[in-house]
Amino acid sequence: MELLYATYHLDAGPAEAEVHARSVLLEQTIETPEGVAQRYPFVRDQMQGQIETLAPAVGGGYRLVLGLPIHTAAVDPAQFLNVLFGNASLHAHLTLEDVTLPPALHARFPGPRFGIDGLRALTGVTGRPLTCSALKPVGLRLDELATLCRLFAEGGIDLIKDDHYLADHPFCPFEDRVRRCQDTVEETAARTGHRAHYVPNLSGTPDQVHRQLDFARAAGVRVVMAAPMLLGLPCFYELVRRHPDVAVLAHPSFGGMPNIRPALLLGKLFRLYGADAVIFANYGGRFSYPQAVCADIAATLRAPWAAVRPAFPVPAGGMQVERTREIVSFFGLDTILLIGGSLLEAGPHLLDRTRELTDRVARAVAEITTSPS
Amino acid sequence: MELLYATYHLDAGPAEAEVHARSVLLEQTIETPEGVAQRYPFVRDQMQGQIETLAPAVGGGYRLVLGLPIHTAAVDPAQFLNVLFGNASLHAHLTLEDVTLPPALHARFPGPRFGIDGLRALTGVTGRPLTCSALKPVGLRLDELATLCRLFAEGGIDLIKDDHYLADHPFCPFEDRVRRCQDTVEETAARTGHRAHYVPNLSGTPDQVHRQLDFARAAGVRVVMAAPMLLGLPCFYELVRRHPDVAVLAHPSFGGMPNIRPALLLGKLFRLYGADAVIFANYGGRFSYPQAVCADIAATLRAPWAAVRPAFPVPAGGMQVERTREIVSFFGLDTILLIGGSLLEAGPHLLDRTRELTDRVARAVAEITTSPS
Repeated sequence: MELLYATYHLDAGPAEAEVHARSVLLEQTIETPEGVAQRYPFVRDQMQGQIETLAPAVGGGYRLVLGLPIHTAAVDPAQFLNVLFGNASLHAHLTLEDVTLPPALHARFPGPRFGIDGLRALTGVTGRPLTCSALKPVGLRLDELATLCRLFAEGGIDLIKDDHYLADHPFCPFEDRVRRCQDTVEETAARTGHRAHYVPNLSGTPDQVHRQLDFARAAGVRVVMAAPMLLGLPCFYELVRRHPDVAVLAHPSFGGMPNIRPALLLGKLFRLYGADAVIFANYGGRFSYPQAVCADIAATLRAPWAAVRPAFPVPAGGMQVERTREIVSFFGLDTILLIGGSLLEAGPHLLDRTRELTDRVARAVAEITTSPS
Repeated sequence: MELLYATYHLDAGPAEAEVHARSVLLEQTIETPEGVAQRYPFVRDQMQGQIETLAPAVGGGYRLVLGLPIHTAAVDPAQFLNVLFGNASLHAHLTLEDVTLPPALHARFPGPRFGIDGLRALTGVTGRPLTCSALKPVGLRLDELATLCRLFAEGGIDLIKDDHYLADHPFCPFEDRVRRCQDTVEETAARTGHRAHYVPNLSGTPDQVHRQLDFARAAGVRVVMAAPMLLGLPCFYELVRRHPDVAVLAHPSFGGMPNIRPALLLGKLFRLYGADAVIFANYGGRFSYPQAVCADIAATLRAPWAAVRPAFPVPAGGMQVERTREIVSFFGLDTILLIGGSLLEAGPHLLDRTRELTDRVARAVAEITTSPS
């Protein structure tokens, strides 16, 4: 019987830890009184799982590791979540911390098709972080979006993504927007030699996002953005698997589940479901993620993990151009810098400000790679 | 400009409440420095939203009501979530409490197709709560599931649902299971006159769940179960809209987001996305939801709300048969009682135990409806 290992934090004292641990195990497996399972040999021998570890955690509470049978978890990408943290998410005082997969489950989840190396090959960018900016705010018309797109591309940005509020709006319909922005980056590439990639945001029901991706791909788009928690992770999985030649940037919207360790959800699960790069709220920006959480997310995205390709961390959320050196230094070269508002604030000086960003990235890389380690 | 009103709780003191409120508003609308929006008249006038209320909350912190433009929220069922609590879910110290929709957004979200009245008409059950039990634990073979199904049907259960861990397993493939269980309830109905409904669980990627529902419907199934948070709410929405003649029971798996009020997520959003009945963890069972939270969920599911049909509350999670009177008394007649383990524990006496449950429901109804109110 192959097991996956799920690690939880139990906010419990010594008197109740064992009882809580048993109830979480029951919840994530047979979900019936144990006597019932005894009547069915297959259930008794194959479906019950076990408590691997229950030990006091550093900082209080208990660390609980469950060994969970993969008969159910491996059957489809919704059941994997269900077994990992389905009903358990409803238990108070419980946090999902980590997961380890056996080989059969890795076969079900091949992960990113591009990852860091593939996205570098696709964009032709080596030896430095990639740069990314955003077409925003929502409400701009096609001409306004195309202008931003051209200036970002001329300024040397690698990935020009839609704002996550851009969908199939009457004032900038998805297909018209993709055509305009894709034409713009192609025209700029032909003129300047710098090939920026336009990254449209996919949004809607599963049928809508499949149609959007089909259209974008036919228009020449090679990188798209989607929010796995808005669409649902099984929908994201299907999107990724059905379009092997398009890279996917995952957006964290609706991904704030306080009972899941951020690095597990954004760093490990998004990667497992196929994200080639994952946006997260950087420290010191509009959000309040501590620096250590951000380091944890980046490290988890890039950590060796069976045959699952490493994915790019994309720190974002109110980053200032002036912080380029610090961010590159903190996250290293295998990073995508996403800076939106701090460029857009420049208004008529957007092109200069964008060039300043790409110059700062080049200088930061030169300083970091020549300084003694 | 039509607005939707989102209510949040800010865990903030008087010194920072205003700043936090502004940052949440910015996050859920233009997501760029305010100066940028001023340059574009449409963005400035149509996309910025406003703070409607910011006032100290009972019990501490602040109650924040934002008026959010529906240009984005109404464009598709993923964007509605995105505008309501997308990036905001990543903010610490913030809880989503409620939402109010203008007419244009109600047009996008017609809600349940059956609801309480429709599900009563479909099952032919009036004047009492419906009863529901579960085919579990996962790991049973087809013969074992069919036996349970027959005994539940003979015992008078109305809805016989799959365990939420039942998917397309090799040991009980979805299509074989649906055929066997559906045959069983039909054969029992012909023999006994009591028409139970078999309720298969849908699980997988969007393509898989659509195929499963097509198959189930062709086999005569009229009620299915799905977990909106596992599949993704936009996938659940599409499933509901595409199959107008099949009722949907929503399962709460993966729905434990501690930063969303349970009655809003399970009671209001699941209903808005089309659930005809919603399962939730009842007080005094395997989970630790307080009684007041359960009452809030049930009341929210049944509250008058524009043209959105009321949906059935389905309290569940380790309920004992002996609690029937108390549960019916607490939740009232427009309830579905879901009791699994407490029946299955009876083993060879399952039929008697099931009849005990349906008798207890009848007696509880008689007592409640004849007692002075």
